[in-house]
Amino acid sequence: VHNETSTGVTSRVADVRAALGDHDALLLVDTISSLASIDFRHDEWGVDVTVGGSQKGLMLPAGLSFNAVSAKAVEASKRARLPRSYWDWTPIIAANQAGYWPYTSATNLLYGLREALAMLREEGLENVFARHARHAAATRAAVRGWGLEVLALDERELSGSLTAVMLDGSDAVRRLILERFDMSLGAGLGRLQDRVFRIGHLGHFNDLMLAGTLAGVQMGLKLAGHDVGDGVGAALEHLAG
Amino acid sequence: VHNETSTGVTSRVADVRAALGDHDALLLVDTISSLASIDFRHDEWGVDVTVGGSQKGLMLPAGLSFNAVSAKAVEASKRARLPRSYWDWTPIIAANQAGYWPYTSATNLLYGLREALAMLREEGLENVFARHARHAAATRAAVRGWGLEVLALDERELSGSLTAVMLDGSDAVRRLILERFDMSLGAGLGRLQDRVFRIGHLGHFNDLMLAGTLAGVQMGLKLAGHDVGDGVGAALEHLAG
Amino acid sequence: VHNETSTGVTSRVADVRAALGDHDALLLVDTISSLASIDFRHDEWGVDVTVGGSQKGLMLPAGLSFNAVSAKAVEASKRARLPRSYWDWTPIIAANQAGYWPYTSATNLLYGLREALAMLREEGLENVFARHARHAAATRAAVRGWGLEVLALDERELSGSLTAVMLDGSDAVRRLILERFDMSLGAGLGRLQDRVFRIGHLGHFNDLMLAGTLAGVQMGLKLAGHDVGDGVGAALEHLAG
Amino acid sequence: VHNETSTGVTSRVADVRAALGDHDALLLVDTISSLASIDFRHDEWGVDVTVGGSQKGLMLPAGLSFNAVSAKAVEASKRARLPRSYWDWTPIIAANQAGYWPYTSATNLLYGLREALAMLREEGLENVFARHARHAAATRAAVRGWGLEVLALDERELSGSLTAVMLDGSDAVRRLILERFDMSLGAGLGRLQDRVFRIGHLGHFNDLMLAGTLAGVQMGLKLAGHDVGDGVGAALEHLAG
Repeated sequence: VHNETSTGVTSRVADVRAALGDHDALLLVDTISSLASIDFRHDEWGVDVTVGGSQKGLMLPAGLSFNAVSAKAVEASKRARLPRSYWDWTPIIAANQAGYWPYTSATNLLYGLREALAMLREEGLENVFARHARHAAATRAAVRGWGLEVLALDERELSGSLTAVMLDGSDAVRRLILERFDMSLGAGLGRLQDRVFRIGHLGHFNDLMLAGTLAGVQMGLKLAGHDVGDGVGAALEHLAG
Repeated sequence: VHNETSTGVTSRVADVRAALGDHDALLLVDTISSLASIDFRHDEWGVDVTVGGSQKGLMLPAGLSFNAVSAKAVEASKRARLPRSYWDWTPIIAANQAGYWPYTSATNLLYGLREALAMLREEGLENVFARHARHAAATRAAVRGWGLEVLALDERELSGSLTAVMLDGSDAVRRLILERFDMSLGAGLGRLQDRVFRIGHLGHFNDLMLAGTLAGVQMGLKLAGHDVGDGVGAALEHLAG
Repeated sequence: VHNETSTGVTSRVADVRAALGDHDALLLVDTISSLASIDFRHDEWGVDVTVGGSQKGLMLPAGLSFNAVSAKAVEASKRARLPRSYWDWTPIIAANQAGYWPYTSATNLLYGLREALAMLREEGLENVFARHARHAAATRAAVRGWGLEVLALDERELSGSLTAVMLDGSDAVRRLILERFDMSLGAGLGRLQDRVFRIGHLGHFNDLMLAGTLAGVQMGLKLAGHDVGDGVGAALEHLAG
Repeated sequence: VHNETSTGVTSRVADVRAALGDHDALLLVDTISSLASIDFRHDEWGVDVTVGGSQKGLMLPAGLSFNAVSAKAVEASKRARLPRSYWDWTPIIAANQAGYWPYTSATNLLYGLREALAMLREEGLENVFARHARHAAATRAAVRGWGLEVLALDERELSGSLTAVMLDGSDAVRRLILERFDMSLGAGLGRLQDRVFRIGHLGHFNDLMLAGTLAGVQMGLKLAGHDVGDGVGAALEHLAG
């Protein structure tokens, strides 16, 4: 998983590839919440299968998913013995070569994708990645300003697309923020339930949306009785820096 | 003018009506930037002609305008000698009585209006007015926090839909905020040019949008070299109060 | 009026201009239902004021109107003594020179206009005019096929954007077609009331839409008890010719 | 397959169920191109698994799919040994019970679905089915009028949502109709390639759309050199009957 959505931790995919050495295993990467938000290099990093989706960094509704596959993965797929039909790449690759799709296409999402790609190219992918990294850094400045801690520990693995914040009793805060400010924060999952909340900052998102987001979190924390500092001020200082 | 858009000052229309006494003059009120944002009472306040538009508190694109007219105004209109055609109420009133409009209707805006009215009723007009008043008060708290002054002087005339802030050299700040944060603030008009900027807070607008707006203003002021205090913090305190 | 919407008769504007000779009168032309559907030449034909709108050949909702004005018209406007404000060209021309509009703009319609103009250029204006002329001719073939008559008498004045068809008792047919086939035909106006119905064929319109339209008229005529011939067949023959 | 899209033949599902007798087999029915267009009764007909989609009779873009499952099917699913993850009903049924979906939802399609269901209820499902059956009968009248034959042989299996028409060399006609009239007809598939073309008449569709559709087919057939009769006239007679 390139960007782990429940924790806000990214994987160092190139290092994983290096660690694999000449092992025969395929390297499969889920980029659902990183594609078009955090730099990712399918070919350069030697990934065998990359899975992406339309509903995060590509700024579209859910409904399109993408696979990038290496020759080695295609070979392995041909030898695989798990029965499959819709997930089978063979008819898709054959149809793609003629510019088609073997099943009913989500045509209107393809029009949306064309526009999303035009927007990304207009801003420039490097700038898109830098914008996400900057928003993540401003969010972490807010977290420090509140006197709270980010879940991710390793500086090299901090997510550009979302930030998980440690807070016991986070579910009550999330509920209050939803009711009072109409903003939905991500919940902690599994053993992190009620112990973290998650702030998303990806896709079609700018400085003032982030400022509004962090203001909602700060007001919600205070209203829920948490004695937090001025995270918003710290974030604004970062954003204006 | 019920809400003077260039200054953020409201008129006390009922007082104006009282001051008119039994004078024969018609009372005409422009509610373009107050309708559905600030309480207004055409009948109760004895207004003769109220003019409203679709593009502010009704949350629609520009394209629809409304007149509420008293019997006295209709009478006066019949006696008026200014030649007119499109502005003539006679064919409009006649067509309205059968549920029609004498010219080409902006049909799609009428569908939008139906939805806008449903949204206003769902929230409740009293709540809508209170929301605007609260956002205006939070904005003024921010202005005080920045160490700046609001243009309007009389407590009874503070606008709920926009706030004009005194600042010499405001145009450079507005330009910087537009370029850096993609947010367009209102300019000072006439002799207020470059001496005020205006913050709109009306229509489909909530606490976090206001927080983002004020954050953009604060960052812009600082980036333009103005040594301002923490207006955002003051506004958040008001909003969470 | 370049295209008279209630009768389906066009004016030979160039001939009108020629007939004016060196008379001082201004030539004002209403192109509401012809602009971008029927060839019109403001400069070449020596028109002083052309009025157009967004809601017909430009394929947009109602809400934008356009004036093309000659130098002579601007001069006359300056000398005119009718009081005016919104209709005054002076502030509009001044604002236009800087790329602005002196009042609140219908911004979303301007985006629509940009796309409409792109569509017209893509098809080519000559092709757009030819398409409308061809649809008008096919409609007249249908009218002849039904054994009915077109209102317009002069071959040189047949409208490309709509066709008025003579029929006593047309209102009952129109009502039946609206109820049964969900299609709204234009009514006869003034002394043509209940004596003609009007078929529009302009804007974003193609052969099969016209075929469906004419099929609805033919079925409606028959259902209303009119013993008409096979107009649809005649129109299809024209369209496939 | 309740409605076989490539042939325009429906299956008599209740008869299939009866023929199964007390055999243990599950009855799985694909209703992709029949759901909300042709009467279908999951419970009454004893179907075990019904599969539907959003992109046909529900008048939505592709992107939603539905399963109706019998208790017997759920049981069988639990015993099945084919490895599966996304296709596994267990987490879906569990999440559904709390009103949720275990994966990312296509939220905007769900809003569309709510409106589509409201439209179907407003018209009345019986009326929706009758409308499709009537359009199918009118289409077959056109086919007979052209002197051609429908592919389906059994009166009890004629599809209400599409009609396949026998025609050697159909691909050239389809191409001509696409280029000349901007209308895309379905191709013959498999051994029917170039031997049938298919006319769809389902979803948000009315008499005049069908008339335009059939007019396009008739003109295309003639332009391609096929000596056909007046199918459109026959269809209009049926529609107005």
